Amino acid sequence: MVTRVLVANRGEIALRVIRACRELGLGTVAVHSAADDGAAHVVAADRAVRIGPAPAALSYLSIPAILEAARITGADAVHPGYGLLSEDPDFAEACQGAGLTFVGPSPEALRVLGDKINARRIAATAGLPVLPGSPEPVASAEQVRAHAARTGYPLILKAAAGGGGRGMEIVRAPGDLAAALGRVRSAAATLFGDDRVFVERCVRRARHVEIQVLGDRHGTVVHLGSRDCSLQRRNQKIVEEAPAPALPADLLDRIAADAVRCASGIGYHGAGTLEFLVEPDGAYWFIEANCRIQVEHPVTEMVTGVDLVHRQLRVAMGEPLAARDGGGPEPPPGLPASGTVTRGCAIECRINAEDPAQGFRPAPGRLTEVVLPAGPFVRVDTHLAAGSAVPSEYDPLLAKVVVWAPDRAGALARMDRALAECRIGGPGIRTNRDFLRGLLRHPRFRDASHDTALLAGLTAGDVAALTASTVPAGPGDPS
Amino acid sequence: MVTRVLVANRGEIALRVIRACRELGLGTVAVHSAADDGAAHVVAADRAVRIGPAPAALSYLSIPAILEAARITGADAVHPGYGLLSEDPDFAEACQGAGLTFVGPSPEALRVLGDKINARRIAATAGLPVLPGSPEPVASAEQVRAHAARTGYPLILKAAAGGGGRGMEIVRAPGDLAAALGRVRSAAATLFGDDRVFVERCVRRARHVEIQVLGDRHGTVVHLGSRDCSLQRRNQKIVEEAPAPALPADLLDRIAADAVRCASGIGYHGAGTLEFLVEPDGAYWFIEANCRIQVEHPVTEMVTGVDLVHRQLRVAMGEPLAARDGGGPEPPPGLPASGTVTRGCAIECRINAEDPAQGFRPAPGRLTEVVLPAGPFVRVDTHLAAGSAVPSEYDPLLAKVVVWAPDRAGALARMDRALAECRIGGPGIRTNRDFLRGLLRHPRFRDASHDTALLAGLTAGDVAALTASTVPAGPGDPS
Repeated sequence: MVTRVLVANRGEIALRVIRACRELGLGTVAVHSAADDGAAHVVAADRAVRIGPAPAALSYLSIPAILEAARITGADAVHPGYGLLSEDPDFAEACQGAGLTFVGPSPEALRVLGDKINARRIAATAGLPVLPGSPEPVASAEQVRAHAARTGYPLILKAAAGGGGRGMEIVRAPGDLAAALGRVRSAAATLFGDDRVFVERCVRRARHVEIQVLGDRHGTVVHLGSRDCSLQRRNQKIVEEAPAPALPADLLDRIAADAVRCASGIGYHGAGTLEFLVEPDGAYWFIEANCRIQVEHPVTEMVTGVDLVHRQLRVAMGEPLAARDGGGPEPPPGLPASGTVTRGCAIECRINAEDPAQGFRPAPGRLTEVVLPAGPFVRVDTHLAAGSAVPSEYDPLLAKVVVWAPDRAGALARMDRALAECRIGGPGIRTNRDFLRGLLRHPRFRDASHDTALLAGLTAGDVAALTASTVPAGPGDPS
Repeated sequence: MVTRVLVANRGEIALRVIRACRELGLGTVAVHSAADDGAAHVVAADRAVRIGPAPAALSYLSIPAILEAARITGADAVHPGYGLLSEDPDFAEACQGAGLTFVGPSPEALRVLGDKINARRIAATAGLPVLPGSPEPVASAEQVRAHAARTGYPLILKAAAGGGGRGMEIVRAPGDLAAALGRVRSAAATLFGDDRVFVERCVRRARHVEIQVLGDRHGTVVHLGSRDCSLQRRNQKIVEEAPAPALPADLLDRIAADAVRCASGIGYHGAGTLEFLVEPDGAYWFIEANCRIQVEHPVTEMVTGVDLVHRQLRVAMGEPLAARDGGGPEPPPGLPASGTVTRGCAIECRINAEDPAQGFRPAPGRLTEVVLPAGPFVRVDTHLAAGSAVPSEYDPLLAKVVVWAPDRAGALARMDRALAECRIGGPGIRTNRDFLRGLLRHPRFRDASHDTALLAGLTAGDVAALTASTVPAGPGDPS
């Protein structure tokens, strides 16, 4: 029985979860650090508990502090959002141990999928294509060389415990192996407390395609279609869309079926994402699983009509996916897996507090102006308003601007209009808004021939040119 | 050829049209009165022309001033929005005469449908059920009595040139006829410059159901489903939803087919709405046509995925409805008429500057706080921000809060959450927000057994009780 949900996160996703709880009639508890006194999620929740000082390690990552907040507020469930503790099996286990419903997969699922070596094995067992690489950790350059015959060069060294683009390095020639391995192992030990590293073929030009899956606690797993997140800077996504464009429908169907089979195989429940690389010839490879709600989940919501956070909560309460789905005039969109119905195209842009002219250096501060776009089929997920602080301690995401249209060209036009309306600023604050507008006009993105290498291939001059390329006129943007 | 659109309106709808133009790559010209210096639509447009003082009669209703603004800015099309000049055939004709594309139906269509006596005749000719009444104007109590045998009492006296709920009076007994007729004729002459009045049976308990139609300039007319707008105060809608709930699908199909047949019969092009009353036994009656975009159009957009203002503009540019519709992965929703696909349920609430505790007296002023709801499947159409003036000269609409969910119960929960987040206030400003929250919890609205008489049946005490009934907690609403 879930009646009151503690949201173990901050920023826009905490507000997103609180809104979903309220719509489902659930009480809400916010936790926050001293840097987030008065933050939107703190104000929005029924109750709020300050759990520590600004550094996340002492607040948002403190399992004892969060459990204590749940105890004193009478929360009976915990939604972890994304990032922070969301994929920490120890946290999920500690919640269960404290009698709290963890809104996410089981600790066991988090454990096996959070280890990339295990995840590769599970995927391969389920029949998914995995990149040639090492089935076990490698500890020496000699061991890597033994695998290089199958991976070729460049190859990639990845931390088994890594994720979110951290703890990996590309190796272009055998001579670089030893030094690179040392660096990745050392980084992995520091970042994740686990120095195991494995080898994979490096796919340089591919599309990043991911499948949203959703499982209940009764053995049903469905998918809700694909997303393309190929526009990444240093493995951080900045533009995402659904469905993945310009790929054959039968290819996407096969990838989605693979994702469902893999998740089913381990009894996955909750929302999750399986990420794939798709090469120009249609070859595709499983790369990793994300066992939580994704930053980019709104694009899937807009094309399917499914509220993923509602679903997370309802699944956590034990509701089977087959029941209560919709009740509207037609079967619920996106369910079951065999009949996923998506409509139109949705695109999300992440507006970050960063300066494109300074190598995208974070540029936090206090906001004095926040004008958000609106209008039909535009959604903005943000926790910010004029007067809000953007603390340097946390990630620089200011707002997610999401649009929908019946087709991709319409969505691009709408996004350009929306970004033009968006004004977020203050002393010291810089944003990537104009860069995003330019990027969406890049010919390779417009014709969907882009790949994950597009952004890395931009020089500082390219970035400046794209940033300056946007037309001056926009609603509310006469500058 | 349309390249630059003059928006002959103000407020949220002017901003709505400007956004649509920008998404379609069209230039924009705003016109405004002195009371709207610095208003959102003025700031948002590429160019703005002040066309007169605050009173609408001297600015927004001045055809010469608007045509002159079009001339000096090089506009080649005019979008009239709703209200004001939007259904004035003389304005449409004057635009045509000045070489401007009028974004709306032909002057002929406006003329015949704008006269309610003609509209009844056209509808009857097309086979639509019209209420028993007088086929010609009535000029004396004796003439009315001759029709009363078929209408019964109460009957309703309506101005032929009326609309929007003005120029009508219910007559409950024969003895009241003469005085009522005098009042309605006099009001009609004053309001519309046309004292012709006709008689209709008065339907007291019915649902207000309307059908959205869309015609191109090549003879194709389609519908985009139904809306229910039964919650009206003094014939002003305050809550609207799509599709109309709790009515048999085949009944709605028949009404929609009637609407398409009627509009086709007169070669209607552009967006339009045919309004019907539906009685508890399933009998339904055409009452009037609105030849423009409606205030409540967003609910149709949310369930169909069709951007109605885009469609208006594209139709005005001569585009056939069959072409360029979507291009996405499936046929465009809502088109053609034979295959209208709606998804889920959308509800709109009109937040007005009015005081429910004072008989809903307008309560304009200057806004010092504007916090708008957001989150998945929530849309807010407004032209206001903190610092905006709400002039007493114009209608008291502050914002339209629109939500979507897979089913009606979900939409009601989401709307309650959204309204709770919404804070619009300032010195002198009162809003109907809390009344709306209470109204949405009214058992007869919740179970969709409501009708057009529901609001009129509320006493001042009922209004106060509903307004006070909302729970205090809401995101950002700890009061």
